[in-house]
Amino acid sequence: MREPLRANGERLWSSLMEMAAIGATAKGGVCRLALTDFDRQARDLFVRWGRECGCEVDVDAIGNIFVRRPGRDRGQPSVLIGSHLDTQPTGGKFDGVYGVMAALEIVRTLNDHGIETLAPIEAVSWTNEEGSRFAPPMTGSGVFAGEFELEEMLAVTGQDSVTIGEELARIGYSGESTNSNRALNCFLELHIEQGPVLENEGLQIGIVTHAQGQVGFEVFVKGVEGHSGTLPMPMRHDALVAAAQMVTCVEEIAKSHAPRAVGTVGVLNTLPNSRTTIPGYAEFTIDLRHPDDATLTAMEADVHSALVDIAEKRGIDIEVRRHWRREPQLFDTDCVELLRQAAALAKYEAREMISGAGHDACYLNKVTPTAMIFVPCKNGISHNESEYATPENLAAGCDVLLTAVLLRAGRV
Amino acid sequence: MREPLRANGERLWSSLMEMAAIGATAKGGVCRLALTDFDRQARDLFVRWGRECGCEVDVDAIGNIFVRRPGRDRGQPSVLIGSHLDTQPTGGKFDGVYGVMAALEIVRTLNDHGIETLAPIEAVSWTNEEGSRFAPPMTGSGVFAGEFELEEMLAVTGQDSVTIGEELARIGYSGESTNSNRALNCFLELHIEQGPVLENEGLQIGIVTHAQGQVGFEVFVKGVEGHSGTLPMPMRHDALVAAAQMVTCVEEIAKSHAPRAVGTVGVLNTLPNSRTTIPGYAEFTIDLRHPDDATLTAMEADVHSALVDIAEKRGIDIEVRRHWRREPQLFDTDCVELLRQAAALAKYEAREMISGAGHDACYLNKVTPTAMIFVPCKNGISHNESEYATPENLAAGCDVLLTAVLLRAGRV
Repeated sequence: MREPLRANGERLWSSLMEMAAIGATAKGGVCRLALTDFDRQARDLFVRWGRECGCEVDVDAIGNIFVRRPGRDRGQPSVLIGSHLDTQPTGGKFDGVYGVMAALEIVRTLNDHGIETLAPIEAVSWTNEEGSRFAPPMTGSGVFAGEFELEEMLAVTGQDSVTIGEELARIGYSGESTNSNRALNCFLELHIEQGPVLENEGLQIGIVTHAQGQVGFEVFVKGVEGHSGTLPMPMRHDALVAAAQMVTCVEEIAKSHAPRAVGTVGVLNTLPNSRTTIPGYAEFTIDLRHPDDATLTAMEADVHSALVDIAEKRGIDIEVRRHWRREPQLFDTDCVELLRQAAALAKYEAREMISGAGHDACYLNKVTPTAMIFVPCKNGISHNESEYATPENLAAGCDVLLTAVLLRAGRV
Repeated sequence: MREPLRANGERLWSSLMEMAAIGATAKGGVCRLALTDFDRQARDLFVRWGRECGCEVDVDAIGNIFVRRPGRDRGQPSVLIGSHLDTQPTGGKFDGVYGVMAALEIVRTLNDHGIETLAPIEAVSWTNEEGSRFAPPMTGSGVFAGEFELEEMLAVTGQDSVTIGEELARIGYSGESTNSNRALNCFLELHIEQGPVLENEGLQIGIVTHAQGQVGFEVFVKGVEGHSGTLPMPMRHDALVAAAQMVTCVEEIAKSHAPRAVGTVGVLNTLPNSRTTIPGYAEFTIDLRHPDDATLTAMEADVHSALVDIAEKRGIDIEVRRHWRREPQLFDTDCVELLRQAAALAKYEAREMISGAGHDACYLNKVTPTAMIFVPCKNGISHNESEYATPENLAAGCDVLLTAVLLRAGRV
């Protein structure tokens, strides 16, 4: 049996660092929001590197970029690998971009060694995975998988009131193809863990068997504005105090479903946001997650009734909109087995695990056999400018993915 | 004894409505933030009306506008009356502007009747009373009274990062005089109550004997950003949940010093304000008030220790800055007695009361005999676009002020 093929870890690291310079922040992170000029620069670089590898580049109507290395049998469906290039507003250097750069590195390694595969291999970058500038997140993979309507997503308005469609056109990534009914061999996504499990156990590789379910709420709280110096406490209908109490409830409810539940209020805005006016309005988002669908449903019900209860007691109007829900995803058992084999062949110790985050893989899982590989990130910290993963662990993940791709695409 | 002189209530109302058109909002309120173009338009109108009354107009170095009706004895110190023309972002038609328009109406009424006074009468509009765009509030009266340094206040930066000095120059209200050591006969401020007391008791006139003390804090909370789907609840240092808990504490502490204490968080901002990132930063303001200085001090201590306690328990950094404190103000007993007499002469039933809000009168009180008159506002609602006072009550307040002015300035 031959020695497992290794990716070039140094080249992978250097590509990651070059990408990290696009939208780099003073604190060592990256701010590369979807469809901004920085996103365009990152896309341009990925496309250039893909073309330099001799690949064909295709951009679809929602801006997903496919960098295709043909197989010997051009008619075979592709082995698709990749992730996303956009980041959180105070994001790191690895979330998403690692999966895309590793996919590119695999193409480069195969080129280095003149290795041909039967099936084509495609490195993909999905549009707007983060969902910071435009909600919902995972827009590109969601459209690809038929989860979202293309026209609806193109019309989505961001915080700066331009649409996804307008921004795609502006940055030159509004393609023709819709990719509907396109057959794939499989989708494999490589990602940093964004949690503390692998690091705590001293492991380099996690094989993701499933992804937890997630519910997103938007809450709108309407109280009554008043003068902060004159309106007696019992006469107030302060929208911000009500919202604050609700925020603490979300935490309590997540804790009451320990150890696997998480609940987060990420966005909160209040009006008129003036020092001497009792706030008359507040709005916030809630993100609830759990690996078990029934528990997730119970958490939803708990949160909903707690919010309504607070609003009633305070004589305040509330509107709770569930703007999305993704049930827990069980990844394809054959792909999970493939990754287990690949890790063994590449000689890395691995464990199976659950993904806490949502990923493009969760949508792809609905239309093609899908699984994920995780590598450790420092202190489990992600969505943070100090996000970090070691070159060694990043190379290990890339080796496992490379081995899996060769098994699946068929090394000639 | 002659019949009391009456102001022209219809003209007063019509001037108020003309002013309310400047910065009018769709919901019937006014957004006329200090030193904006709308503020300039309101100032220009006030100055024009003042000149049309034959008055001299003076603008001082912090932009306070003095409209002076000379007395027979030009050497006598002036009886100063007025308030402010700026509003909250979602403010009403009466807060502040009523006091300025009533002062103008008194000048007009005296002109109508050809009445001369011994002492001059001056109608004043103070700069940036609200403190929404620029903190601290009551900037103009504070500088006039020597509470703030002129140069320091000119350098204050607003939310849009221009200074008060730059904006005064831009709108043409950067005057020469500093008014330091200028002698005054007294300052009388007429204002809507901004609370529910007069309306509940069916009275038209409140005579303000003192104003409660006030403390303003700015709180900065630093946690750790993280991924909302992956970081287990026990590992989090969520700055927004910490801030939310602190917000509810402010309410609890105010309630624990019932019935007179009030506590408000008016401003709250969080970062990165993204749906799927655990907030790493939050900042908010606290406004605490009480008529009794010792109780106010106790409330301060309660809030401070509650905040530090929450931060410690959550492993979160906190910085609490007390950015201003105004001790309770006891108004001048002679002026209070003057207003009591004036109300009786003008045939309105009055009660004595405490001001919950801060007013320019609180600073003037430190340099000249000062008192205030309140009239009812609907449902006690102020700092709100639906703020309302009836033409009858507004006219009543103006009559009492007119009577007091004649007594104090000496009707010839």
